[in-house]
Amino acid sequence: MSKGKFITIEGCEGVGKTTQVDLLKQAFAGREDVLFLREPGGTAISEQIRRIILDVKNEGMSGICEVLLYSASRAQLVEEVIKPALREGKTVICDRFTDSTLAYQGYARGLGADMVETLSDIACGGLKPDLTVFLDLDPVSAFKRKGGADSKDRLEQAGIQFHAKVYEGYKRIAERYPERVACVPAGEGAQRVHELVMQLLKERGAI
Amino acid sequence: MSKGKFITIEGCEGVGKTTQVDLLKQAFAGREDVLFLREPGGTAISEQIRRIILDVKNEGMSGICEVLLYSASRAQLVEEVIKPALREGKTVICDRFTDSTLAYQGYARGLGADMVETLSDIACGGLKPDLTVFLDLDPVSAFKRKGGADSKDRLEQAGIQFHAKVYEGYKRIAERYPERVACVPAGEGAQRVHELVMQLLKERGAI
Repeated sequence: MSKGKFITIEGCEGVGKTTQVDLLKQAFAGREDVLFLREPGGTAISEQIRRIILDVKNEGMSGICEVLLYSASRAQLVEEVIKPALREGKTVICDRFTDSTLAYQGYARGLGADMVETLSDIACGGLKPDLTVFLDLDPVSAFKRKGGADSKDRLEQAGIQFHAKVYEGYKRIAERYPERVACVPAGEGAQRVHELVMQLLKERGAI
Repeated sequence: MSKGKFITIEGCEGVGKTTQVDLLKQAFAGREDVLFLREPGGTAISEQIRRIILDVKNEGMSGICEVLLYSASRAQLVEEVIKPALREGKTVICDRFTDSTLAYQGYARGLGADMVETLSDIACGGLKPDLTVFLDLDPVSAFKRKGGADSKDRLEQAGIQFHAKVYEGYKRIAERYPERVACVPAGEGAQRVHELVMQLLKERGAI
């Protein structure tokens, strides 16, 4: 059976993840065997679920309800898009996946890593990324690097304690799954980070 | 801590569950300490999730996505409505709950009982019904009892094999949790079945 590679891109807010995904899209422009996806969303049903999660009227949503909705959205994306693409031998690159739920909800919001991993296993039906690129930069450095007079305010607004917990969560995931998760230092310029990511994808036979 | 009783009403299609719930509502009319709920739904967020589940445009929804959405809807209902009502000492009577998901998705649709029970535990945060009233009538008898020239056609339309599996699922649940699940023979007249249900609620100290 032809089997494509499944790559996920992870990282905290402000590490330049969107920029790196855009650089990858440019690098693979015109390649029909490379599929870019973004979570949550990616199917008609997943987008409906995404709207419920993000609707400000739903701020009273319980943490458990939220993580179940993320899992439902993911289950549909896996079944309808990711698994068929991998069966066709495509490379699938997904901006955020199970590790985001684990870092944000499992670790930072305190729902518990075991419960979130159980849900991820159920939602993905056994599918795991072949490679996870973790753009590694702690949130304090990320905001500092961006600099500007408002950096401190923005840090406080964003809840520095929360983002530090997310970062700690990602570091624990990387320690727990060293074969799967590759930490890419994300403190340098975007082009340099992109080169590191491309080199990693080549080494892992993903492109 | 004052702690109300949590009662769920379960059964296959056509056993007269709606009629029995309506008779209970009449019996408890004006009682502010008795709260009637229906799954899926019961909160603004749960109703939004319900609409996604029931929307015919979403017929391509995967079985796993569906069961995760039922669980998300339930998690919000438990947190926002059921737990607070029980803390106030109210009796909560819910038309369908975790056993419906277990019988329909876990057993009849073949997603697996263990997985569905794991999701129910996560969604309910440890809450279990104090008593589950299972209106016990196999689907063939249920449709026969209703009679009429169209009974055979309706059975076939509904997929008799599927409903037989749902019934078998409920029977397994009743065997597995004999302390919690009470089987009420549902083959007699609605008023007689109502008397049996009321007697059971009294015996269990639920009213």
